[in-house]
Amino acid sequence: MKPVMSIDALHRLMEREFPQVGEQFVITEIRADGLCLRMRIDDSHLRPGGTVSGPSMFALADCAFYLATLAMIGPEALTVTTNCAIDFMRKPPPGDLLGEARILKLGQSLSVGDVIIHGLDDPRPLARASLTYSIPPRR
Amino acid sequence: MKPVMSIDALHRLMEREFPQVGEQFVITEIRADGLCLRMRIDDSHLRPGGTVSGPSMFALADCAFYLATLAMIGPEALTVTTNCAIDFMRKPPPGDLLGEARILKLGQSLSVGDVIIHGLDDPRPLARASLTYSIPPRR
Amino acid sequence: MKPVMSIDALHRLMEREFPQVGEQFVITEIRADGLCLRMRIDDSHLRPGGTVSGPSMFALADCAFYLATLAMIGPEALTVTTNCAIDFMRKPPPGDLLGEARILKLGQSLSVGDVIIHGLDDPRPLARASLTYSIPPRR
Amino acid sequence: MKPVMSIDALHRLMEREFPQVGEQFVITEIRADGLCLRMRIDDSHLRPGGTVSGPSMFALADCAFYLATLAMIGPEALTVTTNCAIDFMRKPPPGDLLGEARILKLGQSLSVGDVIIHGLDDPRPLARASLTYSIPPRR
Repeated sequence: MKPVMSIDALHRLMEREFPQVGEQFVITEIRADGLCLRMRIDDSHLRPGGTVSGPSMFALADCAFYLATLAMIGPEALTVTTNCAIDFMRKPPPGDLLGEARILKLGQSLSVGDVIIHGLDDPRPLARASLTYSIPPRR
Repeated sequence: MKPVMSIDALHRLMEREFPQVGEQFVITEIRADGLCLRMRIDDSHLRPGGTVSGPSMFALADCAFYLATLAMIGPEALTVTTNCAIDFMRKPPPGDLLGEARILKLGQSLSVGDVIIHGLDDPRPLARASLTYSIPPRR
Repeated sequence: MKPVMSIDALHRLMEREFPQVGEQFVITEIRADGLCLRMRIDDSHLRPGGTVSGPSMFALADCAFYLATLAMIGPEALTVTTNCAIDFMRKPPPGDLLGEARILKLGQSLSVGDVIIHGLDDPRPLARASLTYSIPPRR
Repeated sequence: MKPVMSIDALHRLMEREFPQVGEQFVITEIRADGLCLRMRIDDSHLRPGGTVSGPSMFALADCAFYLATLAMIGPEALTVTTNCAIDFMRKPPPGDLLGEARILKLGQSLSVGDVIIHGLDDPRPLARASLTYSIPPRR
């Protein structure tokens, strides 16, 4: 397992394939086994009290693991989530979030791993997701 | 376990507490052990190819189980998701979705159950989520 | 989806493939979308206080869903669990347990569904598991 | 969060509370945020082909996270699993296994974290479990 796509190439793919959400996400780092994704939080992600909503954190985890998988296998846009288990542990403050995605197994047809979500200035996990993505058969 | 809030009361609570998303959801039925929630799908929920995004289905499951729990315990808006495991099984068609929420255990501090998501005209499950909500201590 | 193996055929497969655990399990009914499996509880499954241990309930869920999948696809002993999310809801009494397995999606390579576990005389769920099994490519 | 029980104290608690399974497990290390637990694998844990069964790996994850939680909160034997999501990633070889438990959040009533399972000589994860334990109210 070794990254085969650059941050720029992944950003271009996101803009092309997910124009509705691409602007919310910025990859800050690609790693040997995953990547770190920053989510720009605006009012549409907040709940009363100013915390980031659960579905927004799910979206961050899902997108971070999707991009981590593509970083390793190349631009297979049809890769889809088959499963996610997410634990919400702490109330998120109302600012940008980071999702640290780590691939634990990259097989022929499945990519399995997890994402830890935390704030910019506090390493304590706000949520942790375990994800499985299905990879379409290679042509 | 027995519903203590009406559809109207739940709709009013949603509009008040979740003005950003409340309009997307309509409760179609309250049941002895849960409820059925309809999600209005628009372009913001779609992915290329016209399928409903994973985070949108997560939002439907999360909201359906939240409302099912409130229907039984009353308007405790601070009830929060602690855990969700979701399986995505079929590609959703680009139309409104139903989430059928069922509470399996309603305890003093936790509500546990699941949500089956399907389209309006097809009972086959598109996704199934298991959820746990934490209920704040009663005053 | 339609059962293609009988209770007897599944029992024989279990005795042959899983001699160490086969005797603990008895299929009580095969259904259109799954089956019901009874687990004989003895001292080795109990924890202090007389409740059935979590790993024992996991074993029941895992075995029930495995057999439900085989009932539909035929004797593919190499079918393996890829994922399980289990919620423990009530303390089990110290007697035999039933696991009701239901297949929600049977695809070419994955079988997805859930198992509700309850006691013989009480329909309230003690635990509920969501499972995914990987099906080996057909020859 | 800081360990308050020693390896010896945890071993004695296991022998006293779980005489049926205690001998299978040996804590090899206590860490600032968890511990490492070794499971002695014998024939009763194996499946045909010589791989360790799924329920055995579940038992290792469950026990490792239970002991990691007790290491931090003290001997609260009544602490119980409320939830576990486990991904099986690779076929385990027929030898002893290690479970590395890490606590991500230790609250008043819940302990949340994960366990990575691997073989003695190979750091690649065989399985990864996310767990939540319920902690009884302190007297």
